Amino acid sequence: MALDKDIVVLLGGVGGAKLASGLAQILPGQRLTFVVNTGDDFWHLGLRICPDLDTVMYTLAGLVNPDLGWGLKGDSAVALETLNSFYGVDTWFRLGDKDLATHLQRSQLLRCGRSLTEATGRLSKSLGLDAALLPMSDEEIPTKIETLELGELGFQEYFVKHRWQPALKSIRHAGSEKSSLTTQVRSALMAADMVLIAPSNPWLSVAPILAVKGMRDLLTSLDVPVVAVTPIIGGAAVKGPTAKIMSELGQEVTAANIANFYTGIINGFVNDSQNEPLGCSELRSIQVNTLMKTEDDKKSLARATLDWVESWGA
Amino acid sequence: MALDKDIVVLLGGVGGAKLASGLAQILPGQRLTFVVNTGDDFWHLGLRICPDLDTVMYTLAGLVNPDLGWGLKGDSAVALETLNSFYGVDTWFRLGDKDLATHLQRSQLLRCGRSLTEATGRLSKSLGLDAALLPMSDEEIPTKIETLELGELGFQEYFVKHRWQPALKSIRHAGSEKSSLTTQVRSALMAADMVLIAPSNPWLSVAPILAVKGMRDLLTSLDVPVVAVTPIIGGAAVKGPTAKIMSELGQEVTAANIANFYTGIINGFVNDSQNEPLGCSELRSIQVNTLMKTEDDKKSLARATLDWVESWGA
Repeated sequence: MALDKDIVVLLGGVGGAKLASGLAQILPGQRLTFVVNTGDDFWHLGLRICPDLDTVMYTLAGLVNPDLGWGLKGDSAVALETLNSFYGVDTWFRLGDKDLATHLQRSQLLRCGRSLTEATGRLSKSLGLDAALLPMSDEEIPTKIETLELGELGFQEYFVKHRWQPALKSIRHAGSEKSSLTTQVRSALMAADMVLIAPSNPWLSVAPILAVKGMRDLLTSLDVPVVAVTPIIGGAAVKGPTAKIMSELGQEVTAANIANFYTGIINGFVNDSQNEPLGCSELRSIQVNTLMKTEDDKKSLARATLDWVESWGA
Repeated sequence: MALDKDIVVLLGGVGGAKLASGLAQILPGQRLTFVVNTGDDFWHLGLRICPDLDTVMYTLAGLVNPDLGWGLKGDSAVALETLNSFYGVDTWFRLGDKDLATHLQRSQLLRCGRSLTEATGRLSKSLGLDAALLPMSDEEIPTKIETLELGELGFQEYFVKHRWQPALKSIRHAGSEKSSLTTQVRSALMAADMVLIAPSNPWLSVAPILAVKGMRDLLTSLDVPVVAVTPIIGGAAVKGPTAKIMSELGQEVTAANIANFYTGIINGFVNDSQNEPLGCSELRSIQVNTLMKTEDDKKSLARATLDWVESWGA
């Protein structure tokens, strides 16, 4: 496995952060660029909250709460509990006291005119990250979920407040038609030797990234391996609503349907050993263990993926 | 002592809050209006911080940290410490985690277009206050301190960061010429049966209130008792820089000079038993114990002041 390849990873939160962690353990940070979904971001209590950026940042910094896979380890929630007990504020969205430091600092940087890319760079450098952590866009492109029971919901209302229980009818990326790729995302992708799509939820976490204006065209114009890792293992999602959403959209919960979702964008697919093979697909694919429970699992999946892609050239 | 009098109190932070507490213990809350200095307020870490309003609010709600006289009892500072340890933010201004709830909620209300008067009303009602808590103005009138050593400083830089050690040359109330009295402050003063100026620092805490455009004229037009309580006891301030500032301004540290500061505004003065009498002043005055160490001291001073003023009519 060559260490001199530049790799760009498109990813969401918890699942993506695991693969990010595996990659960061085997490759020099300066070779890695993480382009993170910001469709989940929202203004809340006057703060700009970027759940996926923070999950990836805390994970790479070794600060993430290992039980949850997001948030900071050893965090308290005094401020949030006080907002509720003193002022009756509805605290369905959990914000830890340590975590608040990130939201305060980022919101302050944004209000002082910094872009989200700049703010994220400042925060992640402060936490010691070597890898580049980039939001998918500097514009706000909030993911809106049209549900059967409750009509259209903001992403966090759907995901956290209603715990992704309402049936999903469709997804909208508000403002994507007016969005643009940042210089940093464009440059990283154009210089990449390989693009990975992490085992994040394709509809909720990767689709927002693909919806940034110019992203699909840029990805399809690249002459390098673009490889997705399946988030579906044995007919189920490891965590979260991927399988549920596939059913609601009338799709069989198979890795083949994940690969189909990325048709035209990917030229390789990392399938899980427990899944059916993709069958007659034109796509290159490999079957390995993709379940990441331990640090070794994360490293193994990262290494297997890189080694496999490297073998294409042979 | 009549309970059917409407009383307006002009006050700053800790010293003023003690008298406020004494008054609130002996009078029905709906008879009391507290008009609080907001010259100390500032935007910090993206939050609107109103130290004196919060000190008075927390004191009246029984939530104040009894050791400090400000802040909330039993508070932690996880968010602030994390801002420092993660992001290198200079944390010279202490903000507790519970306290952050107030700043977040107020900042959010202000950003949503509420006035500081409305926001303060909402916060103080949530904490169960019957008395009206009013900022001196809805405009920002930041107190600027011209110092000998460091030039002009923002109030909190002077007071907290440099612990009021630089020698004070002069004080400016930035923007006061464009400020105005709120409807609520004007109405309360016009309906008042008595106005009290709490034993707060005249230069730092009361002068900003008097600097609100229209305040002096309104006070001098009132035909009711307007009574100040001395913050100087036995040639010293109970707490804070009142005596130090008087010296720096070339004044003897006497109650007479406090009374002089309010010339034209007050018609009564509550002097301390330990001080020299005012002498040949035209002003009505009384000498009582004004040191408030216990809850009984606060009630006694409040009761002595009200009873004395009531006796004027006799």
